[in-house]
Amino acid sequence: MIESLRPFFNPLGVAVIGASSNPAKLSYGILENLKQYGYSGEIYPVNPKSDVILGLQCFPDIRSVPDPVDLAVVVLPANFAPQVLRDCAQRGIKAVTIISGGFKEVGDEGRALEEECLIIARENGIRIIGPNCVGTMDLYSGLNTTFIRGVPDKGGIGFLSQSGAICGGVVDYVKGKGVGFSHFISMGNELDVTETDMIAYLGEDEHVKVIAGYVEAIEDGQRFVEVVKEVSKKKPVVLLKAGRSQAGARAVSSHTGSIAGSHAAYQAAFAQSGVIEVNTVSELFDVALAFDKQPLPVGKNTAIITNSGGPAALASDALSAHSFELADLSIETKEKLRAILNPSAQVANPVDMLGGAEPHEYENALKAVVQDDNVDNVLTILVPTSLVDPREIAHSILAACKNQPKTSLSVIFGEESIAEPRKILHANNIPMYVFPETPAAVLGAMSRYKDWKNKPADEPWIAPAYQREIASQLLGRNNHSSSVGEADTRPILKAYGIPVIEGEFASSGSMAATIAEKMGFPVVMKIVSPDILHKSDMGGIRLNISDPESVLTAFYEMVEDVQRKMPKAHIEGVLIERMATKGSEVIIGMKRDPSFGPLMMFGLGGIYVELFKDVGFCISPSSRDQVLEMIDSTRAGQLLAGLRGQTAADVDAIVEIVMRMADLARDFPQIQEMEINPLRVFDQGHGALALDGRIILG
Amino acid sequence: MIESLRPFFNPLGVAVIGASSNPAKLSYGILENLKQYGYSGEIYPVNPKSDVILGLQCFPDIRSVPDPVDLAVVVLPANFAPQVLRDCAQRGIKAVTIISGGFKEVGDEGRALEEECLIIARENGIRIIGPNCVGTMDLYSGLNTTFIRGVPDKGGIGFLSQSGAICGGVVDYVKGKGVGFSHFISMGNELDVTETDMIAYLGEDEHVKVIAGYVEAIEDGQRFVEVVKEVSKKKPVVLLKAGRSQAGARAVSSHTGSIAGSHAAYQAAFAQSGVIEVNTVSELFDVALAFDKQPLPVGKNTAIITNSGGPAALASDALSAHSFELADLSIETKEKLRAILNPSAQVANPVDMLGGAEPHEYENALKAVVQDDNVDNVLTILVPTSLVDPREIAHSILAACKNQPKTSLSVIFGEESIAEPRKILHANNIPMYVFPETPAAVLGAMSRYKDWKNKPADEPWIAPAYQREIASQLLGRNNHSSSVGEADTRPILKAYGIPVIEGEFASSGSMAATIAEKMGFPVVMKIVSPDILHKSDMGGIRLNISDPESVLTAFYEMVEDVQRKMPKAHIEGVLIERMATKGSEVIIGMKRDPSFGPLMMFGLGGIYVELFKDVGFCISPSSRDQVLEMIDSTRAGQLLAGLRGQTAADVDAIVEIVMRMADLARDFPQIQEMEINPLRVFDQGHGALALDGRIILG
Repeated sequence: MIESLRPFFNPLGVAVIGASSNPAKLSYGILENLKQYGYSGEIYPVNPKSDVILGLQCFPDIRSVPDPVDLAVVVLPANFAPQVLRDCAQRGIKAVTIISGGFKEVGDEGRALEEECLIIARENGIRIIGPNCVGTMDLYSGLNTTFIRGVPDKGGIGFLSQSGAICGGVVDYVKGKGVGFSHFISMGNELDVTETDMIAYLGEDEHVKVIAGYVEAIEDGQRFVEVVKEVSKKKPVVLLKAGRSQAGARAVSSHTGSIAGSHAAYQAAFAQSGVIEVNTVSELFDVALAFDKQPLPVGKNTAIITNSGGPAALASDALSAHSFELADLSIETKEKLRAILNPSAQVANPVDMLGGAEPHEYENALKAVVQDDNVDNVLTILVPTSLVDPREIAHSILAACKNQPKTSLSVIFGEESIAEPRKILHANNIPMYVFPETPAAVLGAMSRYKDWKNKPADEPWIAPAYQREIASQLLGRNNHSSSVGEADTRPILKAYGIPVIEGEFASSGSMAATIAEKMGFPVVMKIVSPDILHKSDMGGIRLNISDPESVLTAFYEMVEDVQRKMPKAHIEGVLIERMATKGSEVIIGMKRDPSFGPLMMFGLGGIYVELFKDVGFCISPSSRDQVLEMIDSTRAGQLLAGLRGQTAADVDAIVEIVMRMADLARDFPQIQEMEINPLRVFDQGHGALALDGRIILG
Repeated sequence: MIESLRPFFNPLGVAVIGASSNPAKLSYGILENLKQYGYSGEIYPVNPKSDVILGLQCFPDIRSVPDPVDLAVVVLPANFAPQVLRDCAQRGIKAVTIISGGFKEVGDEGRALEEECLIIARENGIRIIGPNCVGTMDLYSGLNTTFIRGVPDKGGIGFLSQSGAICGGVVDYVKGKGVGFSHFISMGNELDVTETDMIAYLGEDEHVKVIAGYVEAIEDGQRFVEVVKEVSKKKPVVLLKAGRSQAGARAVSSHTGSIAGSHAAYQAAFAQSGVIEVNTVSELFDVALAFDKQPLPVGKNTAIITNSGGPAALASDALSAHSFELADLSIETKEKLRAILNPSAQVANPVDMLGGAEPHEYENALKAVVQDDNVDNVLTILVPTSLVDPREIAHSILAACKNQPKTSLSVIFGEESIAEPRKILHANNIPMYVFPETPAAVLGAMSRYKDWKNKPADEPWIAPAYQREIASQLLGRNNHSSSVGEADTRPILKAYGIPVIEGEFASSGSMAATIAEKMGFPVVMKIVSPDILHKSDMGGIRLNISDPESVLTAFYEMVEDVQRKMPKAHIEGVLIERMATKGSEVIIGMKRDPSFGPLMMFGLGGIYVELFKDVGFCISPSSRDQVLEMIDSTRAGQLLAGLRGQTAADVDAIVEIVMRMADLARDFPQIQEMEINPLRVFDQGHGALALDGRIILG
C-alpha cells in the first residue's frame, strides 16, 4: 500500500494535465513550483493548444507523454476526470492527484462523479489524491505540485490537511521562520487516499520526525485507530480536529459533505491511538516544532533562566497548569550562579538575571542549570532590551543547550527583534516561541506523548465464550420494535455473562406476593410495559417492600398510578426483584458512532452525571486497560478507587462488564444504544450487579 | 488625587536627574526618547559634569533647574534617592519617577530605603512612580520617560504593568501593527502610586478607551475593588494576573518582594469589580484591541464570511466554546448571497465563498450580512491565496464594516502577507487577528464586559442590628487559644442572627439522657473537647439516637473511642442536639485574605467538594446579589435551584447567612477563618440551619 503512494512525493516524472500558458491560472503556478524547488525528475505539461510552457515542451494528450512518468496532476474541470483516469490507466500512470474542485463538495452530481472515478481507479489499480485539493510537496525530493506561493523550510514535520486553504495559510505563516517540514499534503475530498493511508506513509518515511495534521472528518474510524496506534509508537502524531462543537461540525459538513461525528468518539479514538490532540492552529505548529527539534522530556522539573521576572511568572503559571514543576536547583548550582551573576540576581528558580543580563551570563547560567541533576527541562526567556543584541543571546543559548539530552525551549518576547534570533535558534534545533505561556503547553504535549510511547503493550482481550445464540434469538424477536423489552433485555445481558439482578415476572397481585415470599424480603417491584422507558418518572418502581400484604397493595397502587399518568400504556404486570445490598451506583452505556463503532460510556449514577458532566468514553475494540483509563479519567473513578480512606469499590468488575457489553455491541450491529443504569458496584472483590438496562435497536 | 498624577503624563517641564552623556547609559536613552516623540515641554538634563547633552543645556543640580518644571525622572543609584526627593521638595517638584532599581526587590536594606523615601514624599506632598520602573509614556502629549526603543501607535489603550520588562517586550511586539495606545506605564515597586491610583487616573483621561494591565500583586485589595468597580462602569478594565499558581506566586514574590495572595481572592475581586481577566499576554492585547476599536456586541449571533471552510470551522468551534452562536441568516440574505456569489459557494453561515473569492464578493457578501437583523457580529476570514491581494480584501472589509454598529472582527491567516492589510484594517478600526480561534475569545470578553456594564446597581446591604457585645465578649474569652471552643462558637453565630441548631451541654451520661428526653428524640450527640477539630474523624459524632438508654451507651462509647484515638485530648462532655429535618447540606466558609479581606466560600457538603472542587468565592463587602452569583457559579447552586424538577432549596437563606457571617468577620479582625459545615438547607421558604461551626483566631 505504502509503495503505491511513493509517486505522489518522489515520482520519476510528472504530467500536468490541463497545463495552461496563462500565468493567472492555477496550473501555471503548479508548473512554476514544479520547476523551481529542485525536483530532478521530468515535467510534462499536457495541453493540446500549446507547444511550450515555461520552457517545457508541451504534449497534446496523456498518451503522447514519453517515459519516465508515474504521476499525473489533473487541473481540468471535474467532468473530464473519468476520461483522464482512463487515459492514465492506458498510459500506465498509477498515481493521480486531482486538484480540480466540483465534486462531492458541490452536491449529488459531484458525488456521482466521484463514485465513477473510484470505480475506474479500483479497476486499474490507480491511487488518487483529492479531488478538490491543493497538491503535495516533498521538501526532500523537491517535488511541489501545489500552486501555493513559496515553500516552508526543510525539516522533520510531515503535514497533512483536510483543508486546502489551511495549507496555503500555513505556508504563509511558517515561511522563513525555520519551522522545518518534510511533506506538505492537501488531502482534498479523500476519494481514494485517506488521512489514515497518509499517516501510515509518513510513518515509514525516514525524513519524518513528527506527523502533524488538520482533520475534519475520519470516515473509517476503526481502521484509523488500528493504523495510527502503530505509527504513533514510532513517531508522534499531532492532530487538530475541526468540528468539535455542534456549530463547528455543521460548518465542516456543509464545507466537505462529510459527517464529523461526535467529538467524544474522536477524543476517545485519539487517546486510544496515541494521537496528541491540540486545540488551535498555533498550538499545532508550536508542538510539532518541538517534537521535530527536541528530545522528549525525561521529567517534569523545569528550570527557567530569564532576564525579567514577569514573563517568568507567567511561564511558571502555565507550567503549573500543565502539571510541570519548577525544579529545585541544587545548592551547588545556586553557588555557581551566585558566582557568575549580578549580586542582585535571583539564583533560585526562576533564575532572574535582571534586565541587564549579558550574553555570557545567559551562557554560563544555562550551562550551570543544564548540568544540574534536579533539572529535566530548560526554558530560556529573553525580553529584548536596548542593552543587548538578541542574536548574541541566541548564540549563548546554543552554546549551552545545543545537542544535549534535556529538553530545551526558548521564549523571546517581541516581534521586530525576534526574527533573526529565531532563525539562529531554529537552524540549531532550539524551538523559540514568542509568548511565555507557550512552552508549557508544548512540554505538556511532549510529556503526554512520552507516556504513550513508554506504556507497555496492553494485554489483548480474549473474549470469553458467550451464549451468542440466546442473545441472537432474543434480539431477533424484538426486531419489529425500536427497543428491546425489559423481560428480554436482562437475559440478553446475562447471555453475555453480565450479572443482572434476579427478577420474576408477575401478571397479578397475588402472583407477585407468592413470588416475593419465595424470593425473600425485602423486594423491589417494577412495572412491566413496552410503552414505558423511564419507569421511575411514571411511579413504576417501589423499593424496600417487606411483606406480602405490602406487595399486594403496591401492585394495585402502581398499576393505578401508571394508568393515570399514561392512560394508553399497555401494562403487562410487574417484575419482582430481591433488594440488592448497598453499593455505589454507576451508569455504563454504549452508543454506536457512525465512524468509530461502539462508543462506550461510564459515569456516576444519579443526578451527578447531569450536574457535573462527569463521564468518560472509550471506543471498542479496546483493552481492559483502556476501559480502566476511561473510568480513572472521571471523578467518579477516583471516588470508586477509595477517596479519603473509603473502601474501594470493585472497579475490575465494572471493567469486565464494559468489555462484555462492548462484545455484545460488536456481535450485533443492530444494537444502536445500550445502557445499564444503575449498575450497583460492591466493595472490591464483591462484584457488581446490573439493576436495570435498556437496549435500543437501529 | 488624580490631578497630582497629571505631571507624570503631561508635565510643563521634565528634569532628568542623573542624565548621562554616554549613549550606552539608560538615562541617555531617556533623553533621546523625551526629545523625539513630540513632547513640547522643557527638558532639563541634570548632571554636574556635563554642559550639554543631546543639544540640551545641562544643569549641575536640581535647584538650578529653571521654570517650568514639575516632573523629575531619577536615574541615580538607589542610595541617592532620599536626598534627591528632599531637593525636589525644595525646588517645588511634586512628581518624581524613580527609574533606578536597588530597592525592595533586593532585600531589607532596599526596603528601608523605600520607607525613608515614602516618609519624605508624604511630608512634602510628592507623588512617586517606581522605583525600579521603566517610566511612562503619554502618546498624546508625546512624553516618553522610558528608555524603551520605539513607541507603539497612538490609540485608546491605556496600559500599565507591574513588570518593566513586559513593557519593553510589548512595545517590541506591537510596534508598527496599528495597535493603538494612549498611555504606557511601568509601575515598578509601587512605593507610592499604585495600580489602583493609575486605573483611576486612566478612567478619567478622555483618550483612554480601555485600560489594560499586567499585575502581579495588589496590596490594598479592598481599595482596588472600591475604585475599579466605578471605573469599569465607564470603560473596560482588562487585566492579566501573574502568580495564579503556587509556582507562579513564588516566582512573583521572589521577583518583586510582594505576596501574591490567593488567586481565588483575585478572581472574586475581579468579578466583583468588573475586571475582565485574561489568561495570556496575547489575549490581553487581542482583547484590548477590540475594546479600543469596536462597539460591544449587541448579541451572540455571529456571521462568518470566509474564503475557506477549514478556518471557518475552527472559528465556529471557538465561538461555541465561548457561548456564541452561528447566526441563522435570513432567507432574504441567503438570496442576496446566491445572486452575488459563485454558484458553488455556501450561502448558509459560515458563508464560504471558496478559494477564488474576489474583493467585490467579500464586499457584497459582507454588506448583505451586515444588514441582516439576525446577525449581531460579523467575522471576516481570509486565507491568502495566489489569486487575490489581501490589501484589496482589507479595503472590501472596510467598505462594508467600517463605522457600523455591529461588532466586526477579521482574521487573515499567515505572516508575510498580513502586515499590510493589518495596517489598513487597524487604521480604520477593524481589529485583525492571525488565528481563526482568536475572535471568539475576544467576543467572549466583550460580552462579559457588556453584561457587567448593563447590570443594574446592586441593592446596598444594610447590616441588621447584631448582638455585637455578646460576640465580642465570647471571642475575648477565647483569645488565649487559636480556635474558639464549640460551646462559644454557636452563641457567637447566633449573636449575628445565624440560625444554629439548639444544643445543650452534658458533662455526664445521665445528664445527657435527661437533656435528650426533655428535648425529644431522635437526638444527635457530639463530643466537646478543645483539642478536637474534626469530630467525625475521631468517632465523636453519633446520629439518630432514639431513646434514653442509647444515649447512655453512646456517651460511654464515644468517650472511650475518642480517648483511644487521642489519649491526650481533654474531653469536657457531649453536646445534645435535636436531629434536624432533612435537607441539602452545604458548607460556607470565610478565610481572611491578606490583601482583599474576608474571602467567603460556598460549596456542596460531603465528599463532593473534594471530588469536584465545586466551590465559589466572593469577597466582602459584597451585595446579596454578588453572594447569589457566587452560589450560582457552582454546580451545587444549580442543584439547590431545583435541577430536573426537584424542589428548590432556600437559597435566600444561604445568602442571608453568608452576609451575616461576612459582617461578623469584618467586625472582628481577629477571626482568621470561619466555617459552617454543614449548613442544612431546607426547601424554599423554610430556611437553613447551621449544624456545626468553627472559628479560628489569628
